Amino acid sequence: MSSQKLSNSVQRIQSSAIRDLLKHSKMEGVISLGGGIPNPDLFDTEGLRIAMDRALTQDGHNAFQYGLSEGDPLLREAICRISADRGIDCTPDDVVITSGSQQSLDIIARALINPGDVVVVERPTYLAALQVFQLAEAQFKSVGTDGEGMIVDELEELVKQTAIKAVYIVPTFGNPSGVTLSDARRQQLVALAKQYDFLIFEDDPYSEINFTSQTFRPLKSHAQAMGASDQVIYTSTFSKILAPGARVGWITMPGWLKSSVVNLKQATDLHTSALSQSLTRHYLDTGRLPEQIKLIRAAYKQKCDALCVALETELGDRLHFYRPLGGMFLWATFKEAFNTTEWLKTTLSNGVVYVPGEFFYCDNPDTSTLRISYASVSETNLVLAAQRLKASLPQ
Amino acid sequence: MSSQKLSNSVQRIQSSAIRDLLKHSKMEGVISLGGGIPNPDLFDTEGLRIAMDRALTQDGHNAFQYGLSEGDPLLREAICRISADRGIDCTPDDVVITSGSQQSLDIIARALINPGDVVVVERPTYLAALQVFQLAEAQFKSVGTDGEGMIVDELEELVKQTAIKAVYIVPTFGNPSGVTLSDARRQQLVALAKQYDFLIFEDDPYSEINFTSQTFRPLKSHAQAMGASDQVIYTSTFSKILAPGARVGWITMPGWLKSSVVNLKQATDLHTSALSQSLTRHYLDTGRLPEQIKLIRAAYKQKCDALCVALETELGDRLHFYRPLGGMFLWATFKEAFNTTEWLKTTLSNGVVYVPGEFFYCDNPDTSTLRISYASVSETNLVLAAQRLKASLPQ
Repeated sequence: MSSQKLSNSVQRIQSSAIRDLLKHSKMEGVISLGGGIPNPDLFDTEGLRIAMDRALTQDGHNAFQYGLSEGDPLLREAICRISADRGIDCTPDDVVITSGSQQSLDIIARALINPGDVVVVERPTYLAALQVFQLAEAQFKSVGTDGEGMIVDELEELVKQTAIKAVYIVPTFGNPSGVTLSDARRQQLVALAKQYDFLIFEDDPYSEINFTSQTFRPLKSHAQAMGASDQVIYTSTFSKILAPGARVGWITMPGWLKSSVVNLKQATDLHTSALSQSLTRHYLDTGRLPEQIKLIRAAYKQKCDALCVALETELGDRLHFYRPLGGMFLWATFKEAFNTTEWLKTTLSNGVVYVPGEFFYCDNPDTSTLRISYASVSETNLVLAAQRLKASLPQ
Repeated sequence: MSSQKLSNSVQRIQSSAIRDLLKHSKMEGVISLGGGIPNPDLFDTEGLRIAMDRALTQDGHNAFQYGLSEGDPLLREAICRISADRGIDCTPDDVVITSGSQQSLDIIARALINPGDVVVVERPTYLAALQVFQLAEAQFKSVGTDGEGMIVDELEELVKQTAIKAVYIVPTFGNPSGVTLSDARRQQLVALAKQYDFLIFEDDPYSEINFTSQTFRPLKSHAQAMGASDQVIYTSTFSKILAPGARVGWITMPGWLKSSVVNLKQATDLHTSALSQSLTRHYLDTGRLPEQIKLIRAAYKQKCDALCVALETELGDRLHFYRPLGGMFLWATFKEAFNTTEWLKTTLSNGVVYVPGEFFYCDNPDTSTLRISYASVSETNLVLAAQRLKASLPQ
């Protein structure tokens, strides 16, 4: 008996090279700029305890019993209120609760992608999204990004020549790129989707972590204003603002997709943990989320500022980067030819790790890039990390 | 924009006719023998509260933070101890935590089934398993069951003629059949798997709900004794003995499958709710589970006994059934030609619903069958339901 029994689709995602690369990141004295995890020191432990207490007291058996595949109706109502604040008009019927954004993407891919369908991603794009589209046997095309996010003109050239099924995009405070799609490009993208009849998978985990006073209107909101609402499938999550371990996210989708997504959710895991949903709903009811988001914004902004200054000071002549307007990631590119995967051995021995950029491409990786996550690192360590990176440079 | 955008695979599971059929089951005065949900009155609410309190106090941030895709190592250790009690020898490395059995089956199907692969199921079989194998585009063959479970001789005739990829089976206190595979047939099935090189997907959610003093050794345990351990993939869950809403199950698998399952788990939803895992582990640490299982066994046995007596009294001349040795379901067959789907309209108007048997077949449904779930119904209502069923019979 051996791997000859494995399905073709799982063989597409056999290796997880990053995991091997980052296995040293928890070593004593190593500063990790690698993992994309929220800072646990900012968890609202007190609020979460209050919420859990209410969940167990007020929801009785419901927190422990089987529930609806589409999710708790009261939580879906609360999500509609959050959505309204973001400029998205929806009702609980448009929303399905998932076990986090990763599951949202997997369900969307399974609902919509046939083998060979073309999915367009950003260069660079979110690694785990590539995995789910690979599982669905999508064919990838990619479009470059700059300081204003995806270069939509480049997409336009592509869709003139090739029929595409969908564009997958993290438009706001992107992972890994750290950049944000400009408003003009948002409208341009939605107009293209309408004209060329493709779907937009809008992945929005980070938009609440905004370092600016600007608002960044979701593509879904633009689409509603532009008569293209049927074209945009929107996903978001509580992972980055509340508690990733609870695994609660959601999909907001057009009516034509709803029953397929619910059927898939049911076939996939019946429903998202009732306990996690109950916790989330009661936390929202405490009214503490806005303060919690303010706290996260301020803390991450401070870290991001410290990182940018340190990088500029230590490596400004060698590295180029766009200053993030929010989120958890900074993307840097060496100004000369460079291989950040090979360099990692040196930086590790100097006590700092990051994620080499090449893993975030579906093709033709730019090896001179790296992703830096600052969310869980102290300012002191961010400065120290920049110094260690400098010390690791080839002379 | 319309359903033309949907994937082929999701179109396989479009309709959920049962859901429509059972939508009346929560109507005032209707006794539901339909849903397969555990009795919430038996939830160990006190123990769950203690466990949650310890989870939040002792696990700190870990209950809210991202975790390992394969699941909490301490919970996997605890599962190995439970497995040992069931006769299965395994280490935490052999176990991956899932968000319940449904997800276990979906991951197994995605890891192993290519389009066209033959999966053999029982007649009748678990409906939601059919869904995940349909999604993976399996081809079904079916084998009959009697009072001793799957008729393995029939399977042998099949595998002599057709190459099959796997057998999916609920060998102990089956859903929907209520029957249990005899020990001789367990050995025969494992020997066949070894001889004809197919896999066994052993789904074991109910084995702790044992009404007898017999033990029913899992196929996985037989396989370990017979040198066929590589052939059996075993799934189980805490849903039926602790709290289904927490969505915590597991897969115990051969080494050759491990990394594929972990990669799929990661691509699917990163990991199972850390909160739910933490709750489960701390509940197990309280040592209350054995008493809890005793309570469930006694209560379900009493209900099952009451149902069997009432059915025999009211409908013994018309219905045939095997008395369940455990679990939550009784499967009944009319002795004459009958259509239980049509009959449901009459029984509903008389205040009782069940699940028509035809939904539990991959082909050639036997319309004279029905599934009765007794777990969540009072003994008084079980007797009343039998009387109402009798009153609903055509004269």
